[in-house]
Order: sequence, then structure tokens, then C-alpha cells
Amino acid sequence: MIKSAIVGASGYSGAEVFRILSGHPNVELTAITSTTRQGSSISELYQNITSSADMVFSSYSATLAAENDVIFLALPHGQAMEIVPDLMAAGDAKIIDLSGDFRLPGSVYESWYKKPHSSPSIIDSAVYGLSELNHGALLKARLVANPGCYPTSIILAIAPLSLAKVISEPIVATCLSGISGAGRAATDLTHYCRAESNVSSYKVGGTHQHIPEIEQWLSGLAQETLKIVFTPQLGPFTRGIYSNVAAPLKKETSLKEIDELYRAFYDDKPFVKVLDQGVFPELKGVSGTNYCHVGVTIDKRTNTVIAISAIDNLVKGAAGQAIQNMNIIFGLDETTGLTTMGSMP
Amino acid sequence: MIKSAIVGASGYSGAEVFRILSGHPNVELTAITSTTRQGSSISELYQNITSSADMVFSSYSATLAAENDVIFLALPHGQAMEIVPDLMAAGDAKIIDLSGDFRLPGSVYESWYKKPHSSPSIIDSAVYGLSELNHGALLKARLVANPGCYPTSIILAIAPLSLAKVISEPIVATCLSGISGAGRAATDLTHYCRAESNVSSYKVGGTHQHIPEIEQWLSGLAQETLKIVFTPQLGPFTRGIYSNVAAPLKKETSLKEIDELYRAFYDDKPFVKVLDQGVFPELKGVSGTNYCHVGVTIDKRTNTVIAISAIDNLVKGAAGQAIQNMNIIFGLDETTGLTTMGSMP
Amino acid sequence: MIKSAIVGASGYSGAEVFRILSGHPNVELTAITSTTRQGSSISELYQNITSSADMVFSSYSATLAAENDVIFLALPHGQAMEIVPDLMAAGDAKIIDLSGDFRLPGSVYESWYKKPHSSPSIIDSAVYGLSELNHGALLKARLVANPGCYPTSIILAIAPLSLAKVISEPIVATCLSGISGAGRAATDLTHYCRAESNVSSYKVGGTHQHIPEIEQWLSGLAQETLKIVFTPQLGPFTRGIYSNVAAPLKKETSLKEIDELYRAFYDDKPFVKVLDQGVFPELKGVSGTNYCHVGVTIDKRTNTVIAISAIDNLVKGAAGQAIQNMNIIFGLDETTGLTTMGSMP
Amino acid sequence: MIKSAIVGASGYSGAEVFRILSGHPNVELTAITSTTRQGSSISELYQNITSSADMVFSSYSATLAAENDVIFLALPHGQAMEIVPDLMAAGDAKIIDLSGDFRLPGSVYESWYKKPHSSPSIIDSAVYGLSELNHGALLKARLVANPGCYPTSIILAIAPLSLAKVISEPIVATCLSGISGAGRAATDLTHYCRAESNVSSYKVGGTHQHIPEIEQWLSGLAQETLKIVFTPQLGPFTRGIYSNVAAPLKKETSLKEIDELYRAFYDDKPFVKVLDQGVFPELKGVSGTNYCHVGVTIDKRTNTVIAISAIDNLVKGAAGQAIQNMNIIFGLDETTGLTTMGSMP
Repeated sequence: MIKSAIVGASGYSGAEVFRILSGHPNVELTAITSTTRQGSSISELYQNITSSADMVFSSYSATLAAENDVIFLALPHGQAMEIVPDLMAAGDAKIIDLSGDFRLPGSVYESWYKKPHSSPSIIDSAVYGLSELNHGALLKARLVANPGCYPTSIILAIAPLSLAKVISEPIVATCLSGISGAGRAATDLTHYCRAESNVSSYKVGGTHQHIPEIEQWLSGLAQETLKIVFTPQLGPFTRGIYSNVAAPLKKETSLKEIDELYRAFYDDKPFVKVLDQGVFPELKGVSGTNYCHVGVTIDKRTNTVIAISAIDNLVKGAAGQAIQNMNIIFGLDETTGLTTMGSMP
Repeated sequence: MIKSAIVGASGYSGAEVFRILSGHPNVELTAITSTTRQGSSISELYQNITSSADMVFSSYSATLAAENDVIFLALPHGQAMEIVPDLMAAGDAKIIDLSGDFRLPGSVYESWYKKPHSSPSIIDSAVYGLSELNHGALLKARLVANPGCYPTSIILAIAPLSLAKVISEPIVATCLSGISGAGRAATDLTHYCRAESNVSSYKVGGTHQHIPEIEQWLSGLAQETLKIVFTPQLGPFTRGIYSNVAAPLKKETSLKEIDELYRAFYDDKPFVKVLDQGVFPELKGVSGTNYCHVGVTIDKRTNTVIAISAIDNLVKGAAGQAIQNMNIIFGLDETTGLTTMGSMP
Repeated sequence: MIKSAIVGASGYSGAEVFRILSGHPNVELTAITSTTRQGSSISELYQNITSSADMVFSSYSATLAAENDVIFLALPHGQAMEIVPDLMAAGDAKIIDLSGDFRLPGSVYESWYKKPHSSPSIIDSAVYGLSELNHGALLKARLVANPGCYPTSIILAIAPLSLAKVISEPIVATCLSGISGAGRAATDLTHYCRAESNVSSYKVGGTHQHIPEIEQWLSGLAQETLKIVFTPQLGPFTRGIYSNVAAPLKKETSLKEIDELYRAFYDDKPFVKVLDQGVFPELKGVSGTNYCHVGVTIDKRTNTVIAISAIDNLVKGAAGQAIQNMNIIFGLDETTGLTTMGSMP
Repeated sequence: MIKSAIVGASGYSGAEVFRILSGHPNVELTAITSTTRQGSSISELYQNITSSADMVFSSYSATLAAENDVIFLALPHGQAMEIVPDLMAAGDAKIIDLSGDFRLPGSVYESWYKKPHSSPSIIDSAVYGLSELNHGALLKARLVANPGCYPTSIILAIAPLSLAKVISEPIVATCLSGISGAGRAATDLTHYCRAESNVSSYKVGGTHQHIPEIEQWLSGLAQETLKIVFTPQLGPFTRGIYSNVAAPLKKETSLKEIDELYRAFYDDKPFVKVLDQGVFPELKGVSGTNYCHVGVTIDKRTNTVIAISAIDNLVKGAAGQAIQNMNIIFGLDETTGLTTMGSMP
């Protein structure tokens, strides 16, 4: 059994790691930590936690790295970089960080997150955990920078097009996220009466910190600069990101060619399902699962390709992808513990 | 492996049997039938169905009973009784019927369902599938009458009180069901724009056909007649039944005594969780699971006990309970394939 | 024009008074106060506020009572009683208090609200603002205690039965409130991800402070004690209270007799609509309006009457009723400014 | 009083015309027609209709045009063009058609709606009812082609940019519509259990029939061809369209310049509110109202302008705009009967 701990298990992402690991056949969960809820059980916070899985929150200590094989960090942005050096010094546990702390080069981090990085020397050793692009590097990762939810959904939507160099910039991505993306903190924005039947936008105009993460990987695949116009929106649902990505085609291309690019790229990727031509994702089709559904078509009038993806932001966009990365690192089948089918209705 | 088939798998209950069986380690699904969608695959109807689990709808034949160990019938009320005699003649498969066709004595059936029963002689052989009350009989059942969703939620809420003979009538049960309880048929009532942010009532005033089913079992436990005032309501959510049951106490009783009755009754029942004193169910705590949460307290001012239960109508109230019964009949651990934890948020 | 001010206009009830008064033909709004948002405009808080209606929050002063004809108090419970004496001393403005501070006799207040009342001598002069029962007293009211949302919905549901002395206790009222009933404060309970698709209960077992208010008026109508078993629930919608009230009939009574009691009682009450026999309220039918819909029937099997009512908790249950009371006090048509039809869908 | 009739008042758009006209001080409603519900009252269909406003559906007759001053046509696409010639022959009533039948030149109509137009000669006399662009022509209109909901939201979002010729194609518009946009028909797509917590796309890839309507007006303003990449989506709410429109700027332009273009354009348009810089629309801010909120900013990294608009699809996107047009035609203040403020929460 792989011994694991979750640092920051009271928030939505950490609790989702907990939920999925509770059903994972190869993992033993030894500790869950919380700064604010030490001594209380996680089932007090989430009534869905069954008695047999229930655990009590403990305090954090770097010694977790010596007592476990893998540590999941589900902390607010900026906190992981404060403890990762100590964790790496204290033991050999693999570290999978769900925050944005190790996804960008130090200088890029500073310019987008508006503060210096406290452990810049460690960033280079971190492996970006989008296994559909980075499987080889993950096999020997010590520290994983788990991708952001928006980057996961946007990159998976058009990675085959970037790699094939058939699209040019600007790529326009309009993405609708569920309210859980705003976290468990109770705020005006997450109040039920504000959020239900509502749609809003935030960080409009090229200011969201996920932009460099997206451009870094899309440009890397294309081996040329690809810029993105990204508008994040909040919609009236709990889980999911629904991304609509429009990109100009460099030259006229048939849908058949495009479709083949996608199928070739994702053929051996178990969690990305390319839908039949003419079929587009529904968010509920992936809700509660680690799957990403992608549908693609061409607007011939404007020679634009439109790719639409749907993921569950807390699973493929966070906890599920983290566990998928753990499976890869530990040599398990990539899908272990992650094949639960979603519910519909 | 237990060979199984689902007759009527395109509706919500049948599709839910499909979803749960797809993850059941001891079951092989050989056929799913649909009258209206033969030849198309279930994933066209429910985008959450993964490719590896996908199946094509076939037509119904009584020979399924010879080719399988168990048949789940998820048909509209009144249709199961038409085919059960043939199925029982055609093979040895156990039959688990999710409809109301075999839950009531023939004469009672006629007076509530307003039509004669076509197979009255078979009714007596059917075993009522509320395992928390009827586990012994289920062990040797050939035909199971799976309980209604409302009866499951109401009976589980107050069964310990009935058995202990501490309550008198009238029991007042006000139950809020999700829209999936109205089925997959698109109607005015199930239209999103009508249902969202709405609450409505139906069959008010002692006319719902689940009443005799509830009274039969509560009265049986109490060995005296217990009548119920039952109001079913529809609320703006997809899954779940939230039942509020108020019953007069025969004499002054402490909450401690009541609490002990519940714990004694449910101690060995894996799917019923009696919440701590002062804690009451939240519907999302059981959504997507086979669990029933029960909270109970006393209104001393009126000497009334108030028991509140929450279930997922499609799981514990239908498909999950059916599979729980299958587990019991085939000697498996009762919880096999049913321990998936719900999601929250 | 009637000069008016709203004390505490940033919360949901106060903002709803603002919204309705903005369209009232006979009222001029001179001031809106807020402790926390002085100097900012109400449209920053509620994007629906149109530019022409927009106002800036000011600080509270007792002199408002000298500068206005009517003051609406929309403060958290316990705060109105602190300022009402000063307001009454400072000017002649009528005061309509939306809190629970002046609805109960001092001793009853203390036992339910668990603290002493700071202005017990003023309580007797307050007029309970349920105009359907108390129209005469309202005509000459100086201080109005606007009813609670649950009492409004429950009392209107069965007042005709109490008055006719046809029902006995215990009355069982199970009431589902929208999340706006929990106020504008962002808390775990009001978080979208917790509240959507969820149902929960609180103050179960005869502990809600609205109970004495309900019993006082139902018993007063009946001239005998009528106790109530009251369970408040929260449902996944923003606005509304849907109340299911079951009461034992003293003797066998026909639905025709019951129906006539309701029509006689409500014939001249413009905001209560008694639905046709066999029709029951839908919450959306009253959402956004000052109307109360009531449907009633008899469960002959148990000789119980079941009355179901629906109101918008923020309108008929708070702000709308307050303005209805203002209309009555100032001799306007009771419906002035309140006839906006709800939206459906 | 302006005498009016609604042809097709049982659907959502027609019922919304009914709701708004019921509160319009200058309009008398003489008839509402329905093919399927003749003889029943509209309050049976929509429980929010108050008794005083209630009417009975009658059958359609062209003589309505002789008996009224204005006729609103709220029929499924393709039906208005069948009856408009007769209506125009039968009387002098102004006709406001909410369908797509008279919005496009005949040849364009045929190529997008895939069928010939039955009254092509009348099309030229129809005036496009987007008063913010076409006020002059509306003053003398006999037949109004009321704009589509998506065109209203997209055109209003960027009309100032088109007119100022500062943007080039392709314009990428990603629009999220509420379920009411799919109409009152109960279908798989409008089933609550399918639609809630879901997002889906349809007519992806330049196939939606609103595209030529949008391009015609944007290109007309710019006096050059402007093509649009348009993806319509359905989101989990009843009312509203939330449009995100990204357009390349021809040259570097400051936000101040852009902002001034918007304020100049909309300064005298009562129903379009340009939000403060840095503020973007929330859908609930316009729900239930005839207002359009617009927020705009620039993504300097890609020199793209992003304009976001929110409307209520049934009001500004259909019924409200139709009544706004009626006000203009009959010389009333444009806002008469349309100033109801939305509710929030």
C-alpha cells in the first residue's frame, strides 16, 4: 500500500483528494491536516463522508514526508512554496502540489502572481502534471506541479492543433467555471442567492494568472508563440469547467483532418474522450469524474476551428488529476481508483 | 460472475441500475432492453456512460430468464405484472421488480392503483425488498418487490418507533422529492423553467398509492393500525427524498430512550446512519449513494417525535436498494458495489 | 408624497423595501442607512438597481423620525428595540419594524429569544402587522411589528380553520424556506456549493422563536389553545416559503364546507388567493410578489385537513407586507405599489 | 388606450408580452390567442397570473387587425409570414413580429432557414426593431421585425465599436442562454434533470440562423464586412443571455477611448447601461427587466477588445423590446411600462 497524507484537506480540492483516495485500492491514507479544524473529523464538515472512511484532522509537520510515500498539498496559492523545501529535506515522499506555486518559471511567476517566489531554485525540478503531454517526465518526478483547472481544460481542448501547427493566434477561450472553483470560503460571490441563476466574469482582459501556464504549453507544443484571449466566467453550478476555444486555422483544413489529429493524439489517453463529429460536450457528462470530453468542428465561413471541452474542475481539474499523476509515478495503471462513472441524471 | 439483465434500462431507474452494476465486481451485464431505443447505445442517451461500459439496447424476450441469474425490471407501473409470469416460466433467474406491481395484496392493489392486477396469484410469492426489515425473507426470494422511494424513506425514518410501539397515529409525513422522481418523460412538470426555484405538491389528501405500502409495514411492526397523513412534494433538485415525519408519542419519553431505540435497530444495518443527537440530515449528504441518514428529536411541548430522513431516490429508493437485495440473495456482502461515497460539494 | 426612510437597507429585507418603494407612486424615499456601507451606493451591492433609483447609504440618526412620515426598520433581531424609544421621542414618523422585537409580550420574548427585552413598555403599543387578521388596529398604529415570514405563511394557511374552531391540536407545519431567509451574510450554510441541490432542517423540535408568534394568533382566533409542531427547512432556491400544514378536524367536515370558510375569510383580502379545489400552490406562482396562494383539502382516511400556502419570504413575508401596512396606515389603497405580477417562467 | 392583441400567447415570449402589457398604463389587451389552449385561461398555465389580469385564450382571426391598434405575433418561426399578409389586408393595426420571419432579405432567409419565404415582397417593408440602432425607421413602422435574442445581446455589446470602425474580424461571440430560450415545449433538452448543473452547445461552427442578422447590422454600422464566430450555449438558468464578445482592435486604442465610444453611443438610450470601467455584467442584474448591461475592456497583450453584455432573453431579447418598439411607434415615452426593477437576490 502506498502511504499518503493530505496537507490542507478541509478545502474543496483537498477533500476531493480524500474522497477519491478513500476508494483507491492501493493507497492508505495516514493523515489529513487542517490549520483551522484540527481535532474535528472531516465528516463534520462534509456529511457525505461515510463512517468507515472518516478521519480526524491533525496539524501539519514536515515529518509527514518521512512517514509517507506521497504527500498531496492542497493549500491556498503561495503556501506550498513555503513548506516544500522542508518537506523535501525531511523525507523521500513524492510531493504533488495542487497549487500554482511550481507551475511557472520564477520570473514569470513573479510578474503574474505579483510577489516573489520563496523557493525559486526548486521550480526547475518540478514536473508539470498534465500527463497527456508530459507522461515521460512524470515517471521520474519527485515534485509534481499539478495543472490549474482552466489550463487543463483549455490545453486538452486544443493540444492536438498546437502540436500539428495548424492554428495561429489569437486563440479566444471563453470558460465557464462552477462556483466550487471559488473555493470553500463563504463570500458575497459564493452566496447562494448571488450565484444561482447568475453568470459573472472576473479577471477579464488578460489578467488571470493561468494565462502564462496555458501559453507556455501550447506554444511549446507548436514551437512558436501562441497567445490566448482568456475570459473566465462563473456559472450557476457547483462543479465543472466548460471551455469554448476558437482558433484561426492557418489554411483551409477539413474537419476530417482535424478529427484525425485529435484521435491520433488522444487514442492512448484513457481520460480524454473525443466525441463523434457533430457531438459536443455536456458538462454533466463528466461531472464527478476524471474524464475530459472534447468536441471539435470548423466554422468554414471564418476558417476557424472551435474546440469545446468539459471537465470536472475538482477532479480532472484538481484532485483526480493529482491521483492520476500519483498512479503514474508509482507504476500503477493510470486509471486506478479513477474509473467511477458519473451520474446522469 | 452473476449474469444479469436490465429490462427497461433507458429510464432513470434502469439507467441507474446500469451505472451501479457497471462498477459491481461480481456482476456481468448481458443485456439491457428498451422498447423505444433498440439498436442505439445507452451512451447516446446518457453522456456520462464511459466507452468501456457502453452497451446497445436490445429488445425484450422472456428467454432472458434462462440466460441470466438475475433480471432487474425497471418498467412503468403495470408492465412488470404482464411479463413476470412468462419470465418465471422461462427460466430460473431471480427477478427484482422496481415497480409497484408486487408490493401490495391484490385487493389493496386494485383499490389504490384503480385497476385489476393481472397476476394476483404471484403476489404472495413476492418478497418485499426493504432488507432492513425483511432480511430473512430476502435470503430465499425468487421475486423481489423493491420498495417505493417514499416508503423507503418514511419507513426507515420511524421503523424503530413502530416496532417499540411508542407512537400513535396520525403520523404526518411531508416529503420532498427531486424531479427525477417524476421520471425521464419530458412534461410540463419536469420542464426546467417550471421546476427550478419551484416547489409543488401532488396527490395531496391521502391519495398517493404509496400510502398502503407504508401503513402495511409500519402497522406490521407495531402490530396495530398506524395511519399516515402523507403529502408528497416536488422540489428544485434532481435527486433525493427528504422526509419529515412527525408522530405523537404515546407517553412522555426521553430523547435518550428514543436514540437508543434507533441505534439498537440500525446497529447492524450498513446503509442506515443514525446521526448524532441534534444533527439532522442534509440531502447532499446522501446524494449519489445508497445511504439513508436519519435524525430524530422530540418536541416536548407537544410530546411529538420528529424523525427526518434523507435518501437518494434513484439509489436507496430504487436501483441501489435493488442491487443491495441482489447481494443478499446471492450471498454476497450486502454492500458490494454500493460503497461509493457521495460528493460534497 | 409620503416621506420615508429605511434603516438597514443593505440586507435582503431592507433592499427589498427599497426595490418596492422605488416603484411606489405615493412615496418619496429620503434616506437609506447602513452601518457597514455608508458612502457607497446601493447599486454597487445590488446590480439590479437602476441608475434613476440609485441612492447612497448614509448613517443612522434618530432625527430621521422628524424628517419622515414613516421609517422602515430592517435590522437584525435585537437592534430595533434599542432605537425605537429614541425614534419615537425624536419625531412623529410611523415606525414599521421588520424584526421580531415587538411581536411578543415581554415575558414570552425573553423565554424564546433568550435575553431580556430592552423596551418592554413599548411592546404593548405595537400593532401586529398581519393585516388579514388585524386590519382595524393597523389603521391607527404608530408602531407596527411586521410579522415573521413563517408565521405569515402558516397563519394565512389555516386562519379560517382556527376562527371556525373546526381543528384541534397538534397542528403539524413543515415549512421549506429559500436561502434568502438566512440573510445576506455569507456563511457555510449559504455557500452555493452547500445549498444547491440540498435540503436541510434547523431548530427542529419546537425551538424556533416563531412558534409563540404563530400560536398566539391561531389560539386567539380559536379562543382556545392551539399548539403547533413546526419544522423549518432550507431548500435550494432563493425566495419563498412553502408551508404544508396538517391539522386534525374536530369532526367530519366536507371539503365544500372548508372551502367556503376560506372563501368567506379571504373574499375581501386582496393578497390571499384561495386556489380552486384540487389545485395546490406552486412556489413560483408567488415569487417576486406580495401574494399568498393557499390550497386546502381533506384526508378523509385520517380526518385531517391539509392546507398548503406559498409566499415570497422577502415580499409578503417581509418587505411587501411592511409596505402593505404602510398603505393601510396612510389611507392608501392596500395594494398600491404592490400589484406587480410575478414572472413565470 | 392602445388596443392590443397577442397571437400565440401560451408560449414563453407571448406570455411575457402578456405579463408586461398587464402592467402597461396605456394599453388595453383585447385578445390572446392560442392554437392548443382555446377556452382555457392563461392563469391555468402560469400560476403567477393574477385574477384581475386573467384572460381566456381565443382562436386566431385576421379580423384582430381591424379591432386593435397593435398585434404582437409570438409564433414559432415560419408561421408569422403565413398570416401577416392577411393581417395587413384586414386592418390597420401595427404588427410587431417576435419571430425571425421578417428580419432578413428573402434570399438570405432562404439560405439560413432552409426553406423559401412565403411573403418575400413584404420583407422590405418590415423595420428591424433594435431601437438603439434604428429608432428613426421605427417611428413610422407598420410591421416590425423584432430582433432575435442573441443578435440583441451581441449587437448591443459591440455596436459602438463597429460604428467607430475600430475593430476587425473575426469577432468571436460565445453566448450562454437560459433554458427558456429553448421554448415551452417539454423535450429531453429542457428536462430539469438534464438541464440543471449542465452546460451544452448547439449549432456550433457557424450554423445558427442568427448569424446573418448579426453580421448584417454590425457590417452596416461599420460599412465594411464583419464576420462573426458564434457559439450558442445553454446554461442552467431560466432567463438571460450572457454574451462574451472578443474582437481584434485595428490599432492600439486606450480603454478611455473605448469607454468614451460606448458612453457617447448609449448616452441617450434608456435601456443600455454601460458599466464603470473594470465592472462587468452579472446576469441577475438584468433578469426580469428590459435593461442591457455592458462592460468592456482591452486585453493589451493581444490588442483585443472584450465586451460583455447581459440581457433577459424574454424581455429585452423578446417581449420587452417588442413593447419598447410599440411605445416608440405610438409616440409614448420609450420606457413606459418597462421600468420595473429586477429582483436581487
